Amino acid sequence: MTSVAEILKGDRLAISRLLTEIENGTSEGKRTLNELFPHTGKAHIVGITGAPGTGKSTLVNRLAYEYRHPSRDRPPLSVAVVAVDPTSPFSGGAVLGDRIRMRDVAGDPGVFIRSMASRGSLGGLAQTTAGLVQVFDAAGFEVILVETVGAGQAEVDIVDLAHTTLVLEAPGMGDDVQTIKAGILEIADILVVNKFDRPGAKNTLRFLKNMLRQFDPEERYELHHGQRSPFPDLPITESEKNKPGWDPPILTTIATSGEGVSELVERITNHRNFLLSSKRWSLKEERRIKREMDTMLQRELLIKWRDSTSSTLYQRTLKKLVKREISPQRAVQFLLEGDQ
Amino acid sequence: MTSVAEILKGDRLAISRLLTEIENGTSEGKRTLNELFPHTGKAHIVGITGAPGTGKSTLVNRLAYEYRHPSRDRPPLSVAVVAVDPTSPFSGGAVLGDRIRMRDVAGDPGVFIRSMASRGSLGGLAQTTAGLVQVFDAAGFEVILVETVGAGQAEVDIVDLAHTTLVLEAPGMGDDVQTIKAGILEIADILVVNKFDRPGAKNTLRFLKNMLRQFDPEERYELHHGQRSPFPDLPITESEKNKPGWDPPILTTIATSGEGVSELVERITNHRNFLLSSKRWSLKEERRIKREMDTMLQRELLIKWRDSTSSTLYQRTLKKLVKREISPQRAVQFLLEGDQ
Repeated sequence: MTSVAEILKGDRLAISRLLTEIENGTSEGKRTLNELFPHTGKAHIVGITGAPGTGKSTLVNRLAYEYRHPSRDRPPLSVAVVAVDPTSPFSGGAVLGDRIRMRDVAGDPGVFIRSMASRGSLGGLAQTTAGLVQVFDAAGFEVILVETVGAGQAEVDIVDLAHTTLVLEAPGMGDDVQTIKAGILEIADILVVNKFDRPGAKNTLRFLKNMLRQFDPEERYELHHGQRSPFPDLPITESEKNKPGWDPPILTTIATSGEGVSELVERITNHRNFLLSSKRWSLKEERRIKREMDTMLQRELLIKWRDSTSSTLYQRTLKKLVKREISPQRAVQFLLEGDQ
Repeated sequence: MTSVAEILKGDRLAISRLLTEIENGTSEGKRTLNELFPHTGKAHIVGITGAPGTGKSTLVNRLAYEYRHPSRDRPPLSVAVVAVDPTSPFSGGAVLGDRIRMRDVAGDPGVFIRSMASRGSLGGLAQTTAGLVQVFDAAGFEVILVETVGAGQAEVDIVDLAHTTLVLEAPGMGDDVQTIKAGILEIADILVVNKFDRPGAKNTLRFLKNMLRQFDPEERYELHHGQRSPFPDLPITESEKNKPGWDPPILTTIATSGEGVSELVERITNHRNFLLSSKRWSLKEERRIKREMDTMLQRELLIKWRDSTSSTLYQRTLKKLVKREISPQRAVQFLLEGDQ
């Protein structure tokens, strides 16, 4: 039994236990998350995404260190790190073993690091990540860094979850149009060219600047999320639209030496202030919570339906469908209305 | 109006129009898909996945050419290509413009190529891809090559859809554990080291062989698919389990010159024969259809619920949730049972 009170006062063992419960999808974990919910909504959630080899882990390490030991005039903040590795959807990352990471901040009680592996279940990864973030938020961590690899859906998910999304690029990854991913530029609140001491770094920077010029930053807040939601998101009001937007800056870093990291934290903080002052914070918050609610709703509808349906009807319908005796549409009709 | 008869006799203009309908998610497209369903199930669906820069497009081009002009004693087969680009979840790939591809097979009526971009909607990409494949299947294409980039979920989806999954790797992409993705090895029916003329190619090959040794091939048929399904998949029977399995081979190719491509097609065909003779074909087929049915069912349940619920209740509940006056669980309870 995980005590909510222990989590709220930041007990590391209790947090650790709860994170495991959530990763395993236990009902105990879900119950506790539910109880923690009123205590969430304070942390600044920062997503860090980029292709393998861009140096995400090293940069996240440095960011955590910079938050703990500010080189400028900033108060130190407590930091939690959630490292998601969807490159390993099936093995759960066990093949590679746990990465050695975060040496610089090890032993610091103001830092908590959790590596998790994708479990390969549809929607499960995003949901579990959101759960872990919620625990850290309730436990009082001020900044939560969510590191994720991936292309496509993983980025959409991080935009949902994070207040501020960093997209990492690195020179020498093959600077062709195929490698520099067009889509993920649009989700970046801040673009980072890491490994800036590498050959070709300035070309990468120039290339990104050109690509970025093609996007209307406003569109990045108008992402569509398909059929997951029964009712559409609230649109941005006209008066909101006319307020000055956020122009994603491109920063350069050398994470191994720490160069540019202090400036990066400065910009992340600026973005947070921009969100708060422009009401984008609450807008993002609202949409995120809406999506969570929609996902839960869908699951509950399915459970409710299953509990009222015989497995025989389901299997019989499936068999007819596999034999192509009925169409998929007819099959679903059978399932919802019974096979008369 | 797209005519089912036109599709069935392979009319290219009709096919093209229907593909667009499906990409746009029109009800006309859905209706036609439904009517085409009895005519599907004949094509060999081959998924090709791998990180950006592994040379997927070039290899797919070569594969199509080899199917059309066999260099060994094989009959030529008609080929459809579905190229999915989830690296561009938002822009729909428009930034890069249409890639110039498939020069070698242009003008051949036995080849049909469709590039599609992810629309950024959850689950939408997989579903649309499945729809396009179904059209080509009904139109009589014998082999359907589905090319997809990505990490994580994209691979899970391709396993669902394809009979045979090729995973591409390339040397010189940074042969560290982070770049060679552990997870996608497990979904490979055939592993391909492309760009085998590049420096370090033999190291990559050795590395992959070592990694592959750690997997039980049988497990690759026991993937879990999370909470999408109300009823679990049928398990593989004991007698099935005792039959000899498929040991994923590692092949090497140089797609730019075509080296190794004929051998690769040979192995893909072997895998098809293995699936057919071991009943894996019908097992895969059944699971895929089941997943499609489950997805449709979920959507229909949500639509049914929405039509019976007032938008006011939804918005009121959301507002309470955003203010953290109620927990997510309580919110869903309100939505399902009404707010008394």
